[in-house]
Amino acid sequence: MIPKSHPRYESLVMREKIAKGVEEGIVHITGLIAHGRGEAFDYLIGEKTQDFAMKAAEAAAAFLKLAQHPVISVNGNVAALAAEEVVKLADAAGARIEVNLFHRSEERIRKIIGVLEAAGGRNILGNEGDARIPGLEHDRALCSSEGIYSSDVVLVPLEDGDRCEALKKMGKVVLTIDLNPLSRTARCADVTIVDNVTRAIPNIRRSYESIDDAEKIIEEWDNRKNLQKALDFICSRLQKIYSEC
Amino acid sequence: MIPKSHPRYESLVMREKIAKGVEEGIVHITGLIAHGRGEAFDYLIGEKTQDFAMKAAEAAAAFLKLAQHPVISVNGNVAALAAEEVVKLADAAGARIEVNLFHRSEERIRKIIGVLEAAGGRNILGNEGDARIPGLEHDRALCSSEGIYSSDVVLVPLEDGDRCEALKKMGKVVLTIDLNPLSRTARCADVTIVDNVTRAIPNIRRSYESIDDAEKIIEEWDNRKNLQKALDFICSRLQKIYSEC
Repeated sequence: MIPKSHPRYESLVMREKIAKGVEEGIVHITGLIAHGRGEAFDYLIGEKTQDFAMKAAEAAAAFLKLAQHPVISVNGNVAALAAEEVVKLADAAGARIEVNLFHRSEERIRKIIGVLEAAGGRNILGNEGDARIPGLEHDRALCSSEGIYSSDVVLVPLEDGDRCEALKKMGKVVLTIDLNPLSRTARCADVTIVDNVTRAIPNIRRSYESIDDAEKIIEEWDNRKNLQKALDFICSRLQKIYSEC
Repeated sequence: MIPKSHPRYESLVMREKIAKGVEEGIVHITGLIAHGRGEAFDYLIGEKTQDFAMKAAEAAAAFLKLAQHPVISVNGNVAALAAEEVVKLADAAGARIEVNLFHRSEERIRKIIGVLEAAGGRNILGNEGDARIPGLEHDRALCSSEGIYSSDVVLVPLEDGDRCEALKKMGKVVLTIDLNPLSRTARCADVTIVDNVTRAIPNIRRSYESIDDAEKIIEEWDNRKNLQKALDFICSRLQKIYSEC
């Protein structure tokens, strides 16, 4: 057991959840490495939601508010870390949930659907694989015709760069949560929330419930400028952490 | 198979080696997360040996040159990524190799010794656990009386912060290889090589073979100043990567 007083308690709890997810067959083994990369960037932003992340969560909420057919894509890491929060957001925003994996396996999809159902989710998509995202090869292209394929706005936390680009090419509004502000996903999405999924997903939900003028928020949104703020913040923090020692 | 033409070939090969290490019981599951953190920082330094890392490798070589009883500590990740290079460095510098694990298990120590022996290593220490590093609890304190315990200079790549501090308190010269220039290990060591172990270990060996005046190198060495250079480099790169897109 990790004591709650540990300065990095939240981070260690997440690490345990991901390791447990691997044991249970929910998280792919390479998901551990991806989680480690996320830890490094989370550390660099202070393991807290910073202003740029709050603004991006608000922009994501605004896009969800104006969507006709919003979909939330869930992979193993997201399910292990934030299944309940995903379900709550889907309920609040009237979005469908689709399990969509980079390393696709029917067994893992079934297990992840189980995790989401245990968290209160209903009518979870993902098993069908009855449509394809154009421009991607093999199983990575598979998606659900009722879900991602026909969505107008899609929230893809922790997404692969190739797939993010392919979704953009389909004309979708792509919202992502990615701790690495330099990743291809971060740079190609319409809204990039540089934050941990465990903090970002509830932030989107709270914004969704509180924002009035979604059109205005979208009109003023500049993803590139916001990413630059994230980079500037990391730089200033790199200097500050060091001078504190 | 990963094509050699892939822009991130080396990084993907390392990832495969670590994943294989987990399958074979050489790398602890949390070693995957640690590897991911390393990947993130390696990305930030451009996945190349930068000047500050070359200088630090030279300083490490100088300390090894003047050592009476140098020891190289090896864990699962280091064995999976750089067993041969560790053996070559130990041979060149007349250093003992000790397998020393954060998550100690006799089986894993035995397996890692096997990997090092297959790479040409002889008289590998680690199984004994017949001495303790003062100030550490449980198995994490265990080390070899002939190895780390009686060493004057110890190279601990990818070390835990607590243990790095404990080794310093024992009066040892601590040389480390750590991609995170902000980690406690990076900040407490006498020499911190901010680089990937696969590049840093051969760099130390080549420096060892070429340097003339080890005393002078040590006299002029300022680890803190060198770490600052690493941080400055990362900051400038954060800005540059982004403007390239």
